[in-house]
Amino acid sequence: MDPKSFIENHKDRLLSELFELLRIRSISADPSYNDDVAKCAVAIEGHMKSIGLENVEIYPTSGHPIVYGECLVDSKLPTVLVYGHYDVQPADPIELWDGDPFEPVIKKTDIHPEGAIFARGACDDKGQMFMHLKAFEILKEQGDIPCNIKFMIEGEEEVGSMNLESFIKNYRDKLACDVILISDTGMIANDVPSITTGLRGLSYVEVEVTGPNRDLHSGLYGGAVANPLNILADMIGSLHDEQGKITIEGFYDDVEAVGTEERAIMAQAPFSQEEFNASIAIPAEKGESGYTTPERTSIRPTLDVNGMWGGYIGEGAKTVIPSKAFAKISMRLVPGQNPDEITQKFINHFTKIAPASVRIKITPHHGGLPYVTHTSDPAYKSASKAYETTFGVPALPVRSGGSIPIVALFEQVLGAKSILMGFGLDSDAIHSPNEHYGLFNYFKGIETIPYFYKYYSSIRTNP
Amino acid sequence: MDPKSFIENHKDRLLSELFELLRIRSISADPSYNDDVAKCAVAIEGHMKSIGLENVEIYPTSGHPIVYGECLVDSKLPTVLVYGHYDVQPADPIELWDGDPFEPVIKKTDIHPEGAIFARGACDDKGQMFMHLKAFEILKEQGDIPCNIKFMIEGEEEVGSMNLESFIKNYRDKLACDVILISDTGMIANDVPSITTGLRGLSYVEVEVTGPNRDLHSGLYGGAVANPLNILADMIGSLHDEQGKITIEGFYDDVEAVGTEERAIMAQAPFSQEEFNASIAIPAEKGESGYTTPERTSIRPTLDVNGMWGGYIGEGAKTVIPSKAFAKISMRLVPGQNPDEITQKFINHFTKIAPASVRIKITPHHGGLPYVTHTSDPAYKSASKAYETTFGVPALPVRSGGSIPIVALFEQVLGAKSILMGFGLDSDAIHSPNEHYGLFNYFKGIETIPYFYKYYSSIRTNP
Repeated sequence: MDPKSFIENHKDRLLSELFELLRIRSISADPSYNDDVAKCAVAIEGHMKSIGLENVEIYPTSGHPIVYGECLVDSKLPTVLVYGHYDVQPADPIELWDGDPFEPVIKKTDIHPEGAIFARGACDDKGQMFMHLKAFEILKEQGDIPCNIKFMIEGEEEVGSMNLESFIKNYRDKLACDVILISDTGMIANDVPSITTGLRGLSYVEVEVTGPNRDLHSGLYGGAVANPLNILADMIGSLHDEQGKITIEGFYDDVEAVGTEERAIMAQAPFSQEEFNASIAIPAEKGESGYTTPERTSIRPTLDVNGMWGGYIGEGAKTVIPSKAFAKISMRLVPGQNPDEITQKFINHFTKIAPASVRIKITPHHGGLPYVTHTSDPAYKSASKAYETTFGVPALPVRSGGSIPIVALFEQVLGAKSILMGFGLDSDAIHSPNEHYGLFNYFKGIETIPYFYKYYSSIRTNP
Repeated sequence: MDPKSFIENHKDRLLSELFELLRIRSISADPSYNDDVAKCAVAIEGHMKSIGLENVEIYPTSGHPIVYGECLVDSKLPTVLVYGHYDVQPADPIELWDGDPFEPVIKKTDIHPEGAIFARGACDDKGQMFMHLKAFEILKEQGDIPCNIKFMIEGEEEVGSMNLESFIKNYRDKLACDVILISDTGMIANDVPSITTGLRGLSYVEVEVTGPNRDLHSGLYGGAVANPLNILADMIGSLHDEQGKITIEGFYDDVEAVGTEERAIMAQAPFSQEEFNASIAIPAEKGESGYTTPERTSIRPTLDVNGMWGGYIGEGAKTVIPSKAFAKISMRLVPGQNPDEITQKFINHFTKIAPASVRIKITPHHGGLPYVTHTSDPAYKSASKAYETTFGVPALPVRSGGSIPIVALFEQVLGAKSILMGFGLDSDAIHSPNEHYGLFNYFKGIETIPYFYKYYSSIRTNP
């Protein structure tokens, strides 16, 4: 049976099973929901067993458990590791939801005229993760499982996947694979499928500028003492030049330039600068000279102040020269750049430009490696062909400006690339009230995934 | 009887009367002390009557009352209006006091080996204000009152003197005077008497920079959107040039340059850059090229960020591009500069340098006029001579970097200059725990003030 017919025949069950999963309040961030998270792991375990996966097991961690199951058909076939998560974001602010976040309902929207499932986790990631289990059912029913398939579904993605690294290091052999398949991202539009091929890395530092050892009266001392806020503002201002380039020495040294051809393909993705500006109500865009907005947010590194504070920030006027000023500064990195090296370059530069009248302290926070899957990768090609089969058009490669640190981690520990076959839309309101996931997207995902296995097996066994 | 003998004969009473006053918890900022403030006004009224002032009256205001009394001896003699205040700062943090802030005790300190009175208001301003009432007693006892003397003692100085302006406007004729005498400042040291001749004015603005209409994910949007914090930092950084000069167009246009001679006299005041830096633990000073630290804090205008905030300022790392960034910015002004004009110049400049990618909102707070009494003023000369008589050395003219808006107000409404005969020391911890006032300073003030009247009457009647 082909995927489309399977879905047609089982539509009600495919929905009711997902709805049951969505009813479980598996909020990983709030310890008062620990029992619900555990219950959700058991539900996933049940689904894995019922579709015929083997060696299904719930692996406890020092946080929430990881559910694993596999189907090893032939050691000569390629192996795909499916990663997803069954935990969800908290539902706050609950009063902004139109209904109970944990009682899924189907409602039509402008973007989803055929209806969308409204519930916390509908898209992120229960809906998208569950597609993979249902796609496996199709393979099973077809009696043709073209790859070895492993499932690793965790319960801590929304709180930083703290225990995933030690798990994959401990079970490196069990998790051995040729590629990792993840549906936890989005695509451009329902008629413009896309695959996320790049993720930016991150370097994040907190800086503290100290002037006098206590807050001073700005009348009595003003003019003769370096004011840490003025100094920090000036230093931050100097981190970009007139062209929007970052002035940190050596910052761009290791950036892998993206070729004209890939930039041309990227430029095919529909984009309106006018609509972009209107969507966030900005009077004009601003960024590095020589690049478009989609390029600035994907293939170019950035530096942003994420928070800054110091002095008197209450109501009214107080005349103080603060002893200290603070800023949180993050840099998004692109392939070639190493977060530790960039952090060190920042520290060197910031220390160098600090005037003698202040003291500087810089504390690095956790960073993340940038990531890229090249469009020449067989797994990428297989995924793109799968989309073409079911959507009628090939998927566009898209580099995302965000960071998913686990993807770089998988590459480091398991030595395998990840294919980010996301079926969500930007408008799905993940992490926000009224999260939803289109019926079109849910069923299209289930329909598309089996083709990935088919094409990937074929391209790997007959390269 | 000369002032010195009077003090010797009445020492115990001069202290016990002040102690009684210090025991009254006249905290103007806290409405739960309203009764104490009222009680203090009555105590001042009693003192005025007991020393023989006439037309003594408590004038209610919409806040705390003003106590007035006068001694008009001869319309041909000059008239001096004494201003002071009987309200005090709150005593918080109370746990940092060595004893009850409202139970005065005498203790020796390194700077006050002969002892100092420890209590809230000991220096600011009950002790200094009370010196004037006691100095009048001396004149009375001498039987020679060389000036018409008016006393105006208010109860809202520590909360901004909100009702003083309307009072002096309403009673402009009653308060008519040739000069105003105030002891609510300090002097350099007990062996280096000084008179505050200049006060800086103030312009204070709050700026708000808006980029996108909501906080954005710095990964998804970073690089393509003006970050209000980066923009505001850059704009603030540009407000000073390499020489520490303020770059606002026309900022220095109306600054009255201080002549070489006055700068030379100012330079006589003892000052050690090394000790200054050590006192506030700064690695190096910083300010406008071509001026010393005492000049930078007195005769030159400044621009300081008093507070700045935006984005994520909690623990850890969040990757947000904030919708808004804020700063409170104040400028200290010197004679010649007008606060309203400077505020307008700031607004013009800041609006002009803002990039097209953000929106700017600027809210002015209350400002204040700068003030100067020239050393050629007869009242200044009289005061300086009075110090010379009792201290053995003339007072140095000192310009303070701070602002006392009422002094400019007196000049505007009453058309009279103020002489700031302060006897406190910087180390007296006014507004802080363990406020104190040296016995030397208290008695020396009482001794010095009568000579001011004598010399001022003489210089005015025989110019």
